[in-house]
Order: sequence, then C-alpha cells, then structure tokens
Amino acid sequence: MSLARPSGRRADQLRPVSIERHYTRHAEGSVLVAFGDTRVLCTASVEEKVPPFLRGKGEGWVTAEYGMLPRATGQRTQREAARGGQGGRTMEIQRLIGRALRACVDRHALGERTITLDCDVLQADGGTRTAAITGAYVALVDAVNWLRSRNAIKRDPVFGAVAAVSVGIWQGTPVLDLDYAEDSACDTDMNVVMNDGGGFIEVQGTAEGHAFRREELDALLALASAGVTELCAKQREALSR
Amino acid sequence: MSLARPSGRRADQLRPVSIERHYTRHAEGSVLVAFGDTRVLCTASVEEKVPPFLRGKGEGWVTAEYGMLPRATGQRTQREAARGGQGGRTMEIQRLIGRALRACVDRHALGERTITLDCDVLQADGGTRTAAITGAYVALVDAVNWLRSRNAIKRDPVFGAVAAVSVGIWQGTPVLDLDYAEDSACDTDMNVVMNDGGGFIEVQGTAEGHAFRREELDALLALASAGVTELCAKQREALSR
Amino acid sequence: MSLARPSGRRADQLRPVSIERHYTRHAEGSVLVAFGDTRVLCTASVEEKVPPFLRGKGEGWVTAEYGMLPRATGQRTQREAARGGQGGRTMEIQRLIGRALRACVDRHALGERTITLDCDVLQADGGTRTAAITGAYVALVDAVNWLRSRNAIKRDPVFGAVAAVSVGIWQGTPVLDLDYAEDSACDTDMNVVMNDGGGFIEVQGTAEGHAFRREELDALLALASAGVTELCAKQREALSR
Amino acid sequence: MSLARPSGRRADQLRPVSIERHYTRHAEGSVLVAFGDTRVLCTASVEEKVPPFLRGKGEGWVTAEYGMLPRATGQRTQREAARGGQGGRTMEIQRLIGRALRACVDRHALGERTITLDCDVLQADGGTRTAAITGAYVALVDAVNWLRSRNAIKRDPVFGAVAAVSVGIWQGTPVLDLDYAEDSACDTDMNVVMNDGGGFIEVQGTAEGHAFRREELDALLALASAGVTELCAKQREALSR
Amino acid sequence: MSLARPSGRRADQLRPVSIERHYTRHAEGSVLVAFGDTRVLCTASVEEKVPPFLRGKGEGWVTAEYGMLPRATGQRTQREAARGGQGGRTMEIQRLIGRALRACVDRHALGERTITLDCDVLQADGGTRTAAITGAYVALVDAVNWLRSRNAIKRDPVFGAVAAVSVGIWQGTPVLDLDYAEDSACDTDMNVVMNDGGGFIEVQGTAEGHAFRREELDALLALASAGVTELCAKQREALSR
Amino acid sequence: MSLARPSGRRADQLRPVSIERHYTRHAEGSVLVAFGDTRVLCTASVEEKVPPFLRGKGEGWVTAEYGMLPRATGQRTQREAARGGQGGRTMEIQRLIGRALRACVDRHALGERTITLDCDVLQADGGTRTAAITGAYVALVDAVNWLRSRNAIKRDPVFGAVAAVSVGIWQGTPVLDLDYAEDSACDTDMNVVMNDGGGFIEVQGTAEGHAFRREELDALLALASAGVTELCAKQREALSR
Repeated sequence: MSLARPSGRRADQLRPVSIERHYTRHAEGSVLVAFGDTRVLCTASVEEKVPPFLRGKGEGWVTAEYGMLPRATGQRTQREAARGGQGGRTMEIQRLIGRALRACVDRHALGERTITLDCDVLQADGGTRTAAITGAYVALVDAVNWLRSRNAIKRDPVFGAVAAVSVGIWQGTPVLDLDYAEDSACDTDMNVVMNDGGGFIEVQGTAEGHAFRREELDALLALASAGVTELCAKQREALSR
Repeated sequence: MSLARPSGRRADQLRPVSIERHYTRHAEGSVLVAFGDTRVLCTASVEEKVPPFLRGKGEGWVTAEYGMLPRATGQRTQREAARGGQGGRTMEIQRLIGRALRACVDRHALGERTITLDCDVLQADGGTRTAAITGAYVALVDAVNWLRSRNAIKRDPVFGAVAAVSVGIWQGTPVLDLDYAEDSACDTDMNVVMNDGGGFIEVQGTAEGHAFRREELDALLALASAGVTELCAKQREALSR
Repeated sequence: MSLARPSGRRADQLRPVSIERHYTRHAEGSVLVAFGDTRVLCTASVEEKVPPFLRGKGEGWVTAEYGMLPRATGQRTQREAARGGQGGRTMEIQRLIGRALRACVDRHALGERTITLDCDVLQADGGTRTAAITGAYVALVDAVNWLRSRNAIKRDPVFGAVAAVSVGIWQGTPVLDLDYAEDSACDTDMNVVMNDGGGFIEVQGTAEGHAFRREELDALLALASAGVTELCAKQREALSR
Repeated sequence: MSLARPSGRRADQLRPVSIERHYTRHAEGSVLVAFGDTRVLCTASVEEKVPPFLRGKGEGWVTAEYGMLPRATGQRTQREAARGGQGGRTMEIQRLIGRALRACVDRHALGERTITLDCDVLQADGGTRTAAITGAYVALVDAVNWLRSRNAIKRDPVFGAVAAVSVGIWQGTPVLDLDYAEDSACDTDMNVVMNDGGGFIEVQGTAEGHAFRREELDALLALASAGVTELCAKQREALSR
Repeated sequence: MSLARPSGRRADQLRPVSIERHYTRHAEGSVLVAFGDTRVLCTASVEEKVPPFLRGKGEGWVTAEYGMLPRATGQRTQREAARGGQGGRTMEIQRLIGRALRACVDRHALGERTITLDCDVLQADGGTRTAAITGAYVALVDAVNWLRSRNAIKRDPVFGAVAAVSVGIWQGTPVLDLDYAEDSACDTDMNVVMNDGGGFIEVQGTAEGHAFRREELDALLALASAGVTELCAKQREALSR
Repeated sequence: MSLARPSGRRADQLRPVSIERHYTRHAEGSVLVAFGDTRVLCTASVEEKVPPFLRGKGEGWVTAEYGMLPRATGQRTQREAARGGQGGRTMEIQRLIGRALRACVDRHALGERTITLDCDVLQADGGTRTAAITGAYVALVDAVNWLRSRNAIKRDPVFGAVAAVSVGIWQGTPVLDLDYAEDSACDTDMNVVMNDGGGFIEVQGTAEGHAFRREELDALLALASAGVTELCAKQREALSR
C-alpha cells in the first residue's frame, strides 16, 4: 500500500495510542486515552443503585455519557449545558458507548449497581467515540477491580475486552483510524466496535459521498479487525502496569 | 432454510409492503408506507429557504424528522412534546433518515431550498426506521416532481433510489425484515440502507447478545441486499401508478 | 337561507363526517374521525394508574393530549417536540378535550385507572378540536367496552354522549361547521360542546372582528345544537357497526 | 332573589371593585385592580417594535402575559420560572386577555409598536382573569394617552371599553362575580368579556358538574351583561380621576 | 461630608424605609418593604415538608425565591417563566437571600418543615436584594409567630435579626443605600448582610471600574454597619406594631 | 501560628500551585491550573464577534463559562447538559470569573471581538473558582499575545494581573486557600479576587455558622492579600517560560 495519507501514516497504521490510568483521583476508574491528538478523559463511577426498570431484578447497569469541552475543537462550540440540553450527535455517541461496554459485562455478576462511564473530550482530532470506547473499557475494568478488592462482587462481571476504531475510504483506499483532516476528506466512514475474540459488537458505516461496494466494506472490516487487535493489546498492556 | 420464525415467514421473506401515495393533501409528497403492521406517514415539505450554514451557496438541503404517536406502540409512550424534547432514540433515527435520503440527492440541482421529510409512526411493529426511509424516498420523489412540474428546477436532483431493511439472527439463522416480536428475540440486529445499484449507504449492526462473527455479518448483508432489491421494485411500482 | 358559503354548503350543513373505528390495533379505542378534509386520529389508552392527586380515592381520570403532524397544515409547522414543548394553543385545546370527555364519565364507576385520549391531527382543514372531541368520544366508549368485556368494571361509567361543532358568522349569516377558508373569513367563531340530551358542556365564542350581539349568539347556539344532534347520530351509527 | 351565597352578596351583586391607577411608576400604564380580595397588578408597556409577522405592515400589536405570585393562593404554588415554563392554564389565560384587549384597539392607528399588558396576581380569590381584563383595559388607555401626550400617534386607537366578569350557577341560581369559595361550589362557570356597547367579545362557559340548559345560559348572559355595564362605569370613573 | 449625591441624600443616609406587614392575606408572613422607590413583596410560606436531603433528620429548611415583575424596571424585561427558566442573576440573588435568612434560624428548633421566602419586586430602583433580605426577615418572624401561636413549635427558632444594605463609592466618596441612578454611576458596589449584633453574614463587593483599596473597603464596611443598625431598628418597630 | 490544619499546612500557606500553558492545542490560550488536587482546564477562545448589546461600539467583550466534569468530585454529580441547563451555583461562579477578568481588560483596546474563558474542573478539591480565575488570567494573556502576534490589536488590552484565593476561619484561626475538607469544616469562607497592585476586585464572604466579626474580616483580607501576591508571582513565572 503506497499512498500519501494526510497524516503520513500507512493505510493500516494506528495513530500513537496512549492509555493513562488513575488520571484523576475520585473516580473508581479514571483513564486518559489518546489516539494521536484526540484526548478523552474516561471515568467509571460506581453507584449502589440501578435505574427504575431494573429495580429488584438482581441485575446491574452500565451506561455512558459523552461530552466535549467547548474548546476541544478548532472552533469553539457552544456548551451543551448552556444551550439547554444534549444534542443529537451527543446522544447518539453516548448510546453507542453504553451499548458497546454492556456487551462485555455480565450484569447479574455485577449485582444491583450502576457503573457510569463519563467520556469527556479534552481535545478532538477525529475518532473521539472510538477512543472513548477503548479508554472506557480500561476505566470499567479498574472500577470492577475496585469493587472486587472490597469483596463487593464475587466473580468478575467483565468477560473479554472491547475496543473500537474508525476506518474509511480515502481516495479509493481503505485506511485505518482517521484523524479529523482525513475524516473530512473520506467518502466513507465506519466505526467498528469489536471484542478481543474477533467478534463484532457494533458496525456503523456511512457513505458520505458515493455508496460503497461490498468489496470495499469487506476491506474496511478487515482493516478494523486488525486495528482492534492492536488496541486490545494496548489495553492489556495498560492494565498490566 | 426450514425454520419457524414467529411470523411464519421464510427467512428471506419481507412482510407485505404497501406504499400509498397522496395520503394527505397539503404536503408536496405524502406517502403512507406499511411494512406489515408497521405504518408510517412520510410527508415531504418543500420550503424556499436553507439552514444558515448553506445560505448563499446555491445548494439545497434535505432533512428528516421522526416521531411516534403515543399509542403507536403496545404500551402508551409519553408524548415527546409533553416531555419537553426529543429523546436520544428519536434523534438518532431522524439523523439516519436524513443522511440516507441525502445520499440520493444532488443538492446543487435542488437549488437553495429545503425538503423536510417528516416520518410519523401511526402504528409500530418493528422496523419503523427502515419503513420510514423506504417511504420517505417516494415522498421525496413526489415533492421533486411537484417542483419540476412548476419548472422550479431544471434537472432531476434525485439519482437512483434508496430503501432500507432490517436483518437479524434469530436462533442462529439470519432472517429478513424483523417484526417487533422477532426483533425482541434476536441476538443481532442490523439496519441496512442501500441504493438500487447495490451500493451501501448505511450499515448499522448491533450485537444484542453475543458478538457476531464475520460469516454471520456476510450472510446478513446478502439477505439485506436481496430485500432492498425487492423494496426498490415496490417503490418503482408505486411511483409508476 | 340562500348564501354562497365558500364551501358551497347550506348554512346549516355539516361537512361529510366519517368515523372509522379500530383504525390502529394497539390502542383500546382507536378512531379516525373526518369532518370533511379534517382528519384526526383519536386513540384511547387505558392505564391502571391515576395522577397523584387522585391516588387512593377510588376514582379514575380521563385526560387528553392533542398534537398536529408538522405537515397536517398548508405550511409546515415546527414539530413541538423539536421546539422543546407544547405551545399555548395546543395546551388550550387538549385541556378543552379533556374537560369535554370528563363531562360524560362517572369517574367512580371507572375505578382507579386513567383513560388518555390522544388526538393527533393527520390533516387539518378547520375544526380540528371539534372533530377531536367527537371522535374521542367513540374511542372512549370502545375503551370502556374493552374494560367491560374483561369484567374490569361493573357498570358503564359513560353516561350520554358528547360531541362538538364550530359555528361562526360569515358575512352576517350564522353558518355551521367552518372549514379553514370559512374560519379565516368569519368575524365570530364559536366552539360548542354538548351532550346528546341538548345540554351545554362548553361554549367558547370569540369575536375576531366586531363584537357579536345577543341575537347572533342565540342563532349560533341554535345552529350548533342542531349540528351536535346530527353528530351524535353519526357516533351512535358508528358504535352500532 | 333570596339566596344565601357564601359571600352573603345578592345574586347580581359584584364584589367591591377598586381600580388604582399609577400603582407603579415605570410602566406607561400601571393599575392595581381589586375584585374583592382578588388583586391584580396590570401594567401596560409600550415598545417601538412589533413581532416578526407584522414587520413593515404599518400595524401595531397588543399582547398580554399573566402570572401569579407563588403565594397569591392559599397553598403556595411553584413558581413557573423555577419549573421551567408557563403551564397550560397560564397560557390559556394570557391568550384570552390578549384577544380581549385587541378587540378594542385599531392596530393601524396604534402604528408599528407593541403594547404588552402584564397581569400579575398579587392575591387570588377567584376571578383573576376577569379582574385582569378589566384592569388591563385601564392600563392600556393610560399607555395610549401617554403616547398621545407625546404626539406619537395621531388618533386614538382605542374604541369603546372592554371589561369582563364571571358568572355561575350556585345551587341552581345564577350568580355574578364568583369568589374562590363560590367558584369551587358552582356547577357551571362562565367568563364573559364584553364591550361597553353590550357586544360580546368572548364567552367561555364550562359545565363543571351537570351540563347546563339553554335557559340557564340565557340567565347567565343577562347577569354578566349587567355586571360588565357596572364594571365599565368603574373604569370610566377611574379614568376620569 | 458635603457632596451632591444624585438623590440629594447625605452620604450616610438611607432612603425612606417602610415595612408594611400583612400586605396579602394568604401567606403566614407577608411584608411589603420599600427602600425609596424599590418595593418588594416578601411572603413567608410554611410547608410541612423538607427537601430530600433533610428528610428524617429532625431539621427544618429556610429557602428563598426571587422574581421581578416584567415592568418593575424602566424597560420591560422578559418574564423568566416565558423565557423558560431563571437566569443567572436571579439564581445568584435568591441563593443569597436564602443563606442570609438561614443565618438567623435554628433549624432544629424549626422542626421538619420548610419556610419559603418569596421576594417579588413590584418596582425596582436599586437595592432590590437588600430590601428583599430586610423585608423577608420580618415575614419570617411573622411566619414563625404563626407557628408558635398554633403551638407547632416549642421554642423560637429565630435568633437575632438580619438586614442588608448596599454601599458604594460615588465620585470617590463612600455612600449608603444606592438607588438605581447612583448604582449605575458607582465604581464600586457592595452588598452587606449583617445581624443586629454587628456580625457579618455576607459581604459581596465588586469593583465595577477601578479596583478598590483597603481603606475604601474599610469605610464602606463602616457605613454599611451603621445602615444595618438603622434597618434593624425599623424591623423592630414594624414587628412591635 | 501553630495549629493543626487538616492539610498540615501553615495557616498562611498556599497549596502547591502549578500553571501549565499550552495544555491543549486548539485554543488561543490553554492552561491547566492546579491548586493542590484541584485541577481546572482554562481555555481562552477568540471570536471575531461581540454580543448584541455591544455591536458597533468599537468595544470587545470578555466572558466566562464554568463546568465541572461529572466525576471531578467524590460523588458523581449529574451532568448539567443532561439535566437540561446550568444550575445556580454554576451561573454564580461563571459570572464571578467573567467580572474578575474584565477588571483587567481595556475593552476598547481589545476591539470588537470576544474572548471566552472556559473553565472546566477536571478534579475538585475546594477552591475551584479561585483556581479558575488564576488560571484563566494566564490563558487570557496567551490569547491576547496570539492576537498581538498577528497584529490584530495595536496595544495591549490587559493591564495588571488578576488572581484569586479563598480564606476561611478554621477553629477560630484564619487560614489561606481551603481544600475541600477544610472548607467543609470552616465557619466562614471568603473568596477574594485582587489585582497585582493590591486592589480588591471582588470580595465574597459568607458566614456558614456564626457571623464573623470585623477583626476576623480584617485578618482574612490580610491573609488573602498575601496569598494573591504569591499567586501573581506564579502567574508571572509561568508566562515567562
């Protein structure tokens, strides 16, 4: 693959990824994840309550909220709290993060408690939702370990690992982990959430320009699959430190 | 494929589909679409203005809003207007419908005007978003034809056709066009928006239970592709009446 | 009375009225009512709960909500859910519908449950609130009959029937059941809710131009009274089918 | 008429009415009106602008807003600003006040300006909307006179006078100007807005218990008519001071 | 001190202060307080409940809400209920009033009940928050006396008295109790809440133009201290009537 | 002064302060300020527009917004965007930050542009508003220097420096720069904003328990004054790097 991506990376190359645990001190899990210049603070908060629809069922809940600091972006965006509510994009992203993380949690093993994953973007450069999912997983594991260290739960409710990456078609070539400049220039953009066993948890592909063909879709999925494998390795490495 | 779907349909069988044009009289396009018991009223409204970010650029806009009547569902749901705003699910769906329809419109040919597709679910039985996209396309074509009949636009801004269908894995078997009972019982659920040339516009797959394997994904995409081909034929037939 | 109403009707002539029961399948009562081109879907939903102020009192509640699809009207109106809440006109109308229907219900006989009448205008051509009341009564009766068929209530909580019609003064002549064009041209506009015994439940008259004289008011009330008698016959006929 | 109304008044007797002009000093018109223990502060504010739908048409606008101080009532009610918006009752009342006052204003003579009538209930004891209309008329005249004293308008845009009163049926007898205790005990309650020429501007009657008969309606209208005549005399007297 | 304040008052002179009790009849305490042309209606409402965070703790709560009628000011301001919520200035003021009054209440002696102080500005001419605090104290005492007269509480939960006044630096000279014209012309503006023992409860000083020096601050505090002493005397006088 | 503060610090000792510039890359000024465990990200965003009330006046504007990440605190707090708006505490703090920073800006020299200071608390341990002001000043200077480097402004609109610190009375002794544990235990709490010339910009003192005496106030102001002198030195040092 010889192409000149705006970022200078190879088509199948992730941006430098860093996962810093214990970034803030109050949360049961607190991770600063960076995918290149995209930096997201992911905290996991444990609360001994569940939403009304789960009360008394012996099951826990995992949910997510997403936010972007007003000047995480090149132009200042209005603060959602000042505008009076969360917009459609925010809701869509936080629903995605929540579903992704619930896919690796046995909610009965968690017991009647809620873990909320707050993913706040400190700096944005494309791929905030995929970075958020990848970092939130590590925060979730830390929060669960905190519960286990206090003997609050008997068996590990987390099975497998979950990570996410974006892929897109840039000038006809499938490329991995788009930054903002690449994302803006891509015809097709796909976010892929997978587990460490190679299973798909969520696939969201959108043709921005021309509709994509089946063989393009296949190439994107292969690229994403390899990227998630790398990201899961980064997660394991961070958790082992 | 011998399996007993709850609906009694074959795995690759759509529900009865009907597309009724001119259902209401004020809108430039007005379609009642039914996928089995799911009934969605799709109107296309033409307005001679564009959103602020497009003013003076000679381009038009296509957008969508989605709503569900309170008793479209088995249990009454609270009216979003009474609750004080649209929820996350509604926003996610209407953003999807808007993207899907924009994928078949040349916005320069449309000129500086907006077509709003209002998709209101009168009765829900699974697949409301895919029915909405499929019906909204027909309403959009009617609205564009109304503009053309008044010589407001010179060339047809609509290229190709767009339709959508859901697919899922029911008891290990990929099945097409899930109704509510099937959707609730499926492990994996995917909404696929395609054009009539077999290109993918949007793919949104979610593992509800276990993550899905690549070969399952492939089977689902093949099923969806055949389903959309049938739906595009229904659209053509409706438009030729 | 020889006058040329815009609609071509006689001064005391209703528009064609149709009342279609079981229009959707989930609601306990579901009626599509048409007064000419005005079409309103009225559903009655039974819920086994009452508002806080009635808890433990052995009484039920009947309430209504009103909505208008964005393109029910000649010009698209903004969706109230998107605007962040219901406007003054909507609240005024739904309060009126609720009061009207409560006037024919023995709430002790209903027991501690709520019937919500959702009146959603699919197509508007004047008189949406009077059509809504007239149709909602039929939906209410169907919902009560559903409860009775399940032996949930012992005696019929509905006494009498309720219907409504608008009247106005068009070019000096009192006329019945205004469509949108007539309503816009009328000096005085009155909505009258009555029962089938000729009793008045609600009278709301507004002088749009000149104040109206007592004898005009008398003529309007007589016209409305005859109109409601006809509408109650239509309701009975629909319920007997 | 010999009956024992809770208030001890005759059936056709108003409560003591007082109309105090110039109650506050900033507003162009400022009136404290009292119908017995009901006290409403009505201010008229002149602004040199009109709503968007009137811009450039050479017409003015008259509108009203209504509020109730939290402890104007026997039980404290939640402040609408704290609750996040105006409720249905408030909107219904302020729309009524606005329509009532527009009925005596020639908006072309007013010119492109808006007069806003703010009616804030300091103490409530029934009939707040009728007191508000009666007092707002006087504030409106003061504001118009202020404009005329500055030669901002050439001819008087106010024609006639507008006042309002409630009537109801208390234990079978029609009674005038209900206080809170009477209102709670009445079967039927009607608010009547009239001009000083005996014309009806708005009639809003509601059967709280049994539907009312035509002869009851007639008696109520006669009672209201006499009451408004008295109120218009009070207005003239206040304006002549 | 010879200076020509806009108001013609001496530098250390309060505006005429009046405190009228029992201004409205429903509230347990109801006071109209006037600091010159600033007039605020302060009601104290007793409710037999406490906020969630105090339930079951045997303590009461004292809180405040603040509002301004739309035409209390020279230009009409938009009604907060119509705008959809309370603004920052309103929240800041009502939080201040609440803290100020809680500073003289033994909440255990009050028992599990809430006293809400509603301070509504009928006419504004500077110093609305200081007038509100000064008047609300008297309303609070009346409400507590009402409770005591019914033997609902055993010992007086109010200790000492609380009053407030503004001070500022006008053309280099510290002056007491600013009216609107003075406030607009002052470089520095300070609101001081004190008790009748000379203790400070709240000091909020803001440099509008140049930062103020320590000796200016000292002079302002001395002026405020004398002013509050006078105001406490007015409160005692009002309460003894 | 020998006392055992919870933090082990001397009464007049600040927490370790760090000021890290260029913390994120998009904003014209971006500072991570830490007062001990309190960490606030302060960005300064330049926009070439002013609020409506300043248009065409040749003046600029400086404003601030404040936010707290949900898990910046020991217990998770609800996200304001999800709750539908900013609360009273947030509004009070962001108004304070804005006033504080405007006190050192010549808005004519700034020209018709707005600098928005977003202060987002990543981790809270008391004193978030004083840290925010101290850090926002540095971000403001960086943004102004960015403007000057592009020759967008001719002369420096920033005069002097602004910093803030909290002081309180802990067990009878005045102490500087309260952390959360100390703040909770203090009877009196004061936030003091000053410039580097020793002038006061804002003084906000609140008695949480007993009212404070004048001599206590004097001691607190002296302590704050020394603290701000130290903080201004830290700001200078950071800006010189």
